[in-house]
Amino acid sequence: MKLLRWGNPGEEKPGILLNNKRYDVSALGEDYTNEFLGSGGLDRLALFLEKEGTRLPEVPALARTGIPLANPGKIVCVGLNYKDHIRETGFVGESEPILFLKAMSALNGPYDGVTIPKNSVETDWETELGIVIGKTGTNIEKPQAMDYVAGYILHNDISERAYMKKRGGTWDKGKGCNTFAPLGPYFVTKDEIPDPGNLKVWLKLNGEYMQNGTTADLIWKVPELTAYTSEFFGLFPGDIISTGSPAGSGIGQMPPRFLRPGDIIEYGIDGLGSGKQLMRAYGI
Amino acid sequence: MKLLRWGNPGEEKPGILLNNKRYDVSALGEDYTNEFLGSGGLDRLALFLEKEGTRLPEVPALARTGIPLANPGKIVCVGLNYKDHIRETGFVGESEPILFLKAMSALNGPYDGVTIPKNSVETDWETELGIVIGKTGTNIEKPQAMDYVAGYILHNDISERAYMKKRGGTWDKGKGCNTFAPLGPYFVTKDEIPDPGNLKVWLKLNGEYMQNGTTADLIWKVPELTAYTSEFFGLFPGDIISTGSPAGSGIGQMPPRFLRPGDIIEYGIDGLGSGKQLMRAYGI
Repeated sequence: MKLLRWGNPGEEKPGILLNNKRYDVSALGEDYTNEFLGSGGLDRLALFLEKEGTRLPEVPALARTGIPLANPGKIVCVGLNYKDHIRETGFVGESEPILFLKAMSALNGPYDGVTIPKNSVETDWETELGIVIGKTGTNIEKPQAMDYVAGYILHNDISERAYMKKRGGTWDKGKGCNTFAPLGPYFVTKDEIPDPGNLKVWLKLNGEYMQNGTTADLIWKVPELTAYTSEFFGLFPGDIISTGSPAGSGIGQMPPRFLRPGDIIEYGIDGLGSGKQLMRAYGI
Repeated sequence: MKLLRWGNPGEEKPGILLNNKRYDVSALGEDYTNEFLGSGGLDRLALFLEKEGTRLPEVPALARTGIPLANPGKIVCVGLNYKDHIRETGFVGESEPILFLKAMSALNGPYDGVTIPKNSVETDWETELGIVIGKTGTNIEKPQAMDYVAGYILHNDISERAYMKKRGGTWDKGKGCNTFAPLGPYFVTKDEIPDPGNLKVWLKLNGEYMQNGTTADLIWKVPELTAYTSEFFGLFPGDIISTGSPAGSGIGQMPPRFLRPGDIIEYGIDGLGSGKQLMRAYGI
């Protein structure tokens, strides 16, 4: 299933994509919360759709698409998880996955504008495969890890490189600015993505391809990352693990190319849909 | 005012401390959410207490004290903000505040047990003054910063030092384990703490003083930190900025002394009350 949420910010209702059309699922009586995911909500939704299917009302064509999860608890990001991206950032790869947290106040709809922070000079893009957790766990073993995965989500891990590298301390400073975490358009259940290790990952800046990778090049893959992350953080339904980005972010261009107001980025991953964002100046 | 929340985990109700007694404020009809803070809830509560005061029902004596805020959005922590603590950690101080994020799944009541992670060998304590934000802002200027502060909260920024320093990547790995963010007992409104820069900060391990500092030794103080943090993260009502810890954490002892199951830590800050936690082994 491809779950979505639609409506104005803060007023989103649940929906579903069927045959490339958005249908309103308000009649289910539940939003796509963490409690929904943790209490068998996906099974309830599947039963509901079996009965109602395309008899459901369509979502109005002009309605905004919001974030497909109602209240995700955290986004744990994996840094430097594609070899080609490690080279372009100038960072040194680690012997274990790098993890950092995205501030949840950075959440943003997949077609909403992105605000370039007031003093930013190095705002950059990163198309990422996000793992959506469906079950509570800590110290999960790799052979069981896929039991904890509910599905996948497209994430643009927007980053301010100067804040990350030149302002002291951890990367978190350059990862959590308002609007820096566009999620969606869909939360795609795992049955639809039998092999998350073989998906094309792409991004265009003003129509020109910048990222053109594949999750086949992930250093640490979905089951390993789920198990590994759960050693440090309790994982809960609705949590997201964002698996890192392939080469082709702005910092890897020759010369580096960062985002400016008016730029448009469009990006996607096989099976997860695509997002598109206009860059706005701060205060506009 | 000293706001508190009481009851079993997930079922907490609002309360207030008056003359050292806990009173039930359920009759106000509102919990201490971010929406409450952002919509003048503290003024409504003050009016309600003027009318009802100590005629309110007392909280049952044995009722648990939970986290005093219903749904804080994020905890931004400041690293290395006391010179004596910088020396003891072996880290090098930065020319700007170090910021990192605490996973919100680490939240924990002030008297609840703390779980030492499965493979942990260096679980450590850090008593900290937390700033509670009351108003939305980015790029706040220092002269206006106190307008964005609603009050203060006691935070034990529990840390796994080996996860922070020896497992690759950012500090977040050692800061966000389940139960690693005990908050409270109270959210104290700022009128009760006229000078947050002159408060005693203490912690005892099994009855013996380990931390005995003062917020007078903060390198970056409350208004500066509020302004600084808002350059990188949007600040919203209910967000917390945790200002760092003075010397005396376990890593600073000679030899280092880390937490073991059965240890009891008790800690507090002038005007903010105290917390007390029993260390538990993983899986118990």
